[in-house]
Amino acid sequence: MKYESTKEALEALNKWQETIAAYAHAMGVMYLDATTAAPSDTWEGRGRTMGVLSQVVYDLTANSENGELLSYLEARQEELSPLEKREVEVFRKNYDQTNRIPAEEYVAYNVLLNDAQNVWHKAKLEDDFESFAPYLEKIVAYNRKFAGYYHPEMKTYDALLNEYEEGMSMETLDAFFAQLRQTIVPLIDQIQKTAQINDSFLFRHYPVETQRVFSDNLMAVMGIDRSHCGIAETEHPYTTNFNNKDVRITTHYYENNLVSSMFSVVHEGGHALYELGVEDRYNYTALAGGVSMGIHESQSRFYENIIGRSQAFVHAIFPKVKELFPEQLSDVDETMFYRAINKAQPSLIRTEADELTYPLHIMVRYEIEKRLMDGSLEVKDIPALWKKLYKEYLGVDVPSDREGCLQDSHWSGGSIGYFPSYALGSAYGPQMLHKMEEDLGDVWQDVEKGDLSKVTGWLREHIHRHGSYYKPGQLFENVCGKFDAKYYTDYLTEKFTKLYGL
Amino acid sequence: MKYESTKEALEALNKWQETIAAYAHAMGVMYLDATTAAPSDTWEGRGRTMGVLSQVVYDLTANSENGELLSYLEARQEELSPLEKREVEVFRKNYDQTNRIPAEEYVAYNVLLNDAQNVWHKAKLEDDFESFAPYLEKIVAYNRKFAGYYHPEMKTYDALLNEYEEGMSMETLDAFFAQLRQTIVPLIDQIQKTAQINDSFLFRHYPVETQRVFSDNLMAVMGIDRSHCGIAETEHPYTTNFNNKDVRITTHYYENNLVSSMFSVVHEGGHALYELGVEDRYNYTALAGGVSMGIHESQSRFYENIIGRSQAFVHAIFPKVKELFPEQLSDVDETMFYRAINKAQPSLIRTEADELTYPLHIMVRYEIEKRLMDGSLEVKDIPALWKKLYKEYLGVDVPSDREGCLQDSHWSGGSIGYFPSYALGSAYGPQMLHKMEEDLGDVWQDVEKGDLSKVTGWLREHIHRHGSYYKPGQLFENVCGKFDAKYYTDYLTEKFTKLYGL
Repeated sequence: MKYESTKEALEALNKWQETIAAYAHAMGVMYLDATTAAPSDTWEGRGRTMGVLSQVVYDLTANSENGELLSYLEARQEELSPLEKREVEVFRKNYDQTNRIPAEEYVAYNVLLNDAQNVWHKAKLEDDFESFAPYLEKIVAYNRKFAGYYHPEMKTYDALLNEYEEGMSMETLDAFFAQLRQTIVPLIDQIQKTAQINDSFLFRHYPVETQRVFSDNLMAVMGIDRSHCGIAETEHPYTTNFNNKDVRITTHYYENNLVSSMFSVVHEGGHALYELGVEDRYNYTALAGGVSMGIHESQSRFYENIIGRSQAFVHAIFPKVKELFPEQLSDVDETMFYRAINKAQPSLIRTEADELTYPLHIMVRYEIEKRLMDGSLEVKDIPALWKKLYKEYLGVDVPSDREGCLQDSHWSGGSIGYFPSYALGSAYGPQMLHKMEEDLGDVWQDVEKGDLSKVTGWLREHIHRHGSYYKPGQLFENVCGKFDAKYYTDYLTEKFTKLYGL
Repeated sequence: MKYESTKEALEALNKWQETIAAYAHAMGVMYLDATTAAPSDTWEGRGRTMGVLSQVVYDLTANSENGELLSYLEARQEELSPLEKREVEVFRKNYDQTNRIPAEEYVAYNVLLNDAQNVWHKAKLEDDFESFAPYLEKIVAYNRKFAGYYHPEMKTYDALLNEYEEGMSMETLDAFFAQLRQTIVPLIDQIQKTAQINDSFLFRHYPVETQRVFSDNLMAVMGIDRSHCGIAETEHPYTTNFNNKDVRITTHYYENNLVSSMFSVVHEGGHALYELGVEDRYNYTALAGGVSMGIHESQSRFYENIIGRSQAFVHAIFPKVKELFPEQLSDVDETMFYRAINKAQPSLIRTEADELTYPLHIMVRYEIEKRLMDGSLEVKDIPALWKKLYKEYLGVDVPSDREGCLQDSHWSGGSIGYFPSYALGSAYGPQMLHKMEEDLGDVWQDVEKGDLSKVTGWLREHIHRHGSYYKPGQLFENVCGKFDAKYYTDYLTEKFTKLYGL
C-alpha cells in the first residue's frame, strides 16, 4: 500500500487540493485578463497556454494515484472528520467525472472554449451568428458526449442540469416553469392593460465616468470590502473568485442607461459577498467557493431584486443617485425611481429584464437547450427558434441575433444547463427572506438606512460561510426547509399587484 | 537510453519549451494582474499560487530527465540545425543554473519576492524604508548565495551582472562609468553656468484622461499594433510579453507632469516593439523574447532618447500635443518644447532624469549594489549612502526615501545587477544609430513626418527579429562591430553642446 497512515493520505489529499487551487487561480486570472485587459488578437497564445495547463490539471486529477488515495481514504471513513469526509466526497466526484472524459477530449474542449469565447465576442459585436455557429456546434457535440460520460443512466440534458445543480431534472424544471408561467403570464397580461410606468429618464445620458463612481458607492452600501474585491469592465458582467480574499466582479457601462450597470453591480456584488463570506478554513480546498450555481444565483438575485429593487434600498441610495446625476434626474423623485426600476415589460435582453418577465427569458433558453441536447434542434436553427419563442413567451420581435441568441456568453463558455439555475436561484430568494424575517423580524428599517449588515450577516451565517461543505439541496433545507416555489410566486404576485395597483 | 532518435529527443525538447512557456505566460499574467488590477489585500493567495507554480517550474527544469536529454542532444550536435543548437545551449544554461539552486530555496525565494513587491509598494507610498528593509535583507542574502551557485569562480556581483548581460563585469563597468563621468561631469558643470532652460510649462495641470489619449497617439506614431499590445497603469512602468503577439506596457500618470508618462510610454513602447518584432518561429521556445537586459534597454532608450527627445520627433508630434493641451501650452512653441524635454538638470528620480544626468543615477545604484554584494554595506545603511552618493554625484539633497532608495521596483523584484544594463543600453544606441545612418542615409526626414517605419524596420531587421538567437555581445557585434562607448559620449557631447550653445 502506498500510504502508511490516514494522516499521510490526508496530507496527500491536501497537497492535491492546494495544487488544483493554484492552477484554477492562474487560469482564472488569465480568463479575467482575456476579458478585461488583453489586446484583441492575443487569443492564440493564450489558447496554447490554457491547453498546456488544462492538460496538467487533467493529468493531476485523472491520474490513477488519486484512485488509490481515494480508495484508501474511503475505506477509513470512521477516522475522518466530517470536513475531511466531505472533501473526499467532492474529490471522488471530481475524479470520477474527469476520468470519464478522455484526456484528449478534455484538453481539446478547453482549447475550443478559449477560441469560441473570442469568436463569440466578435460575432456578437458584428451580429454574425454564422461565424459562431461552427464553434457552438462543436460545443454542443462535446456536451452531448460529456453528458453520457457523466451520467450514462440519465437523459442527456438531465445529466448536464445535474452538473450545475445536483438532483435537478427536466421533470422538476418542467413542473417548476409551468407553475411560474401560471403566475407570471396573467400578471403580465393585467399589467399590459394598466397605465404604463414612465422609466424614460433611466435612458438619458449618464456619463460612464460618473457611473463608475456610482458603482463604488453601490459596493460600499453593500458592505463589500474593496481591499478584497475589485471591479472591472467586460462585455458581459461576471464574478470570479480566486480565494475568499480575492474576488473580482465586472460590469458593463452604457452611456444611455443608468440601470444596466447598476443592477449588474448589485447582482455580481451578491455573488462576491457569497465568496467573500466563505470561512477561511475552506480556502485552497475543494470546499472553497459557493456550492452550486443555483445557490450562487439565489444570492446574486437576492441582492439584485429582493434588496436592490426594494423601496427601502431605493430610499437609502436615492440621495446619492440624485447627487451624482442632478441634471438627468432633476424631474424624478424616489417613488418614480422605484417604480421605474421595477417596470415590468417584455423585452429582448435577459440581463436587463425586470424581475417579473425574467424567468420567461430563462424558459426560452431552457427550451432551446433541451432540444439541442435531445437532438431535435440543430445549431443553425437556433436563431429562428429563438425569435419564435421570444414572440410566443414574451410577445416581442427579435430584430437581430446580437439582441437575440448571441446576447449571452454562457454557450461560448461551454455552459449548457446553467440557465435554469438563474430561475431556481430567483425562486430560492423569497423563501430565504421569509426565514430571515422569521429569525430577525423587520430588516427593512436597516436597509432603508443603507445598512445591509443584518441581511448580509444572516446570509453569511446561514449560507455564505459554509462554502461547499453542504450539498446545495441540503444547505437550502437546513436553512429554509423544503423548497416551495409558492414563496416566489406569492412574492411576485404581491410585489407587482401593489406596484401596478392591480 | 531513453531516446530512440534525435528527432524524438528534439520533440521532448520542444514539449519542454512549450510547457515552460505556458507557465511563464500564466505567472506573467498573474504579475500583470497583481500590479494593475488586483485589490490591495490579495497577495497572500497569490503568493501561495506562485509558490506552487514556481515549484512546478523548478521541478520541470531541474529534473534529471532533462540532464539525460541534454547530454543526448549535446552528443549529437552535428545532427542539429543552428537553431536547435542554440535552443540546447540556452536549455543547458537554464538547467545548470536551476540545478545549482536547491528547490526549497528557489520556491521560498519566489514566495519572498511576491511578498516583497507588496511590501515595497506600500513602503514607497508611505515613505517607510524600515518596513521594506527586512525583505530586502533577505533578497540580498539570497542573491549573494545564488551568485555563488551560478558562478562560484566569479566575484559575487560579477556573477549577478553576468546573469543580465553575459560577459559583463565590474572591471568593464568601472572603466565604462569612469569614461562616462569624464564626459558627463564637465558637461553638467558647463551647463550649470549657462542660462537655464525654462521647462515650467511641462508641470502645469495635465488631466489624466487627456494624457491617456496622448499615450494612444504616441503608440500610434511608434507604429505599435494595438491588437497585440495593451497599455495599463502601474506604480512603476514596465513591459511584459507573453509571446510576440501579446505584449503589454504600463505607464504612470501624474496630473502635474506631462512628460513623465510621455517618456514612459515611448520607453516601454521601445521594449514592446522589440518583443513584437521577434520572428514567429521563436514563439514558445527558449529563444522567444529579447536576448538580454542591455539589448532590451538599448531599444527602449533608443526610442525614448535618440528618437523621442529628437527635434524631428518633436516636430512630428507637437501639433497633436498642442491640440490635446491647447491651454496648458498656449505660450509654448516647438523649439521651447524640444528644449524643455531635454533640459539637463541633476534631480532625484531616475525614470524622470534627463538623458545627460541619467547615467549618474545608475552609478549610484551600481555603487550600492557592489557594496551590498561584497558585504561592505548593510541594508539598513542604504538610505544614508543613497543620500550621500546623490549629493556627491548629482549635487542634490534627497528629502525622503520615497524619492530616494525606495523609488525603483527592481530590488523588490529580486533584480540586483540589472541597473547597469540601462547605462549600457543607452550607450549601445548611438552606435546603432551610426550604423543605421550608414545603411539608410538620413532617417530624420521620415521621423519629422511622424513616420518611424524606416527606423523600426532597420532595428527589426538587425535586432528585433532575432529574439534570443544570438548572444547579446554577438548580436551587437554582428550589427555594429566592436562596442565603443565613444559613440555615446560623442553623441551626448554634440547634443548638449548644441542645445546649450556651450
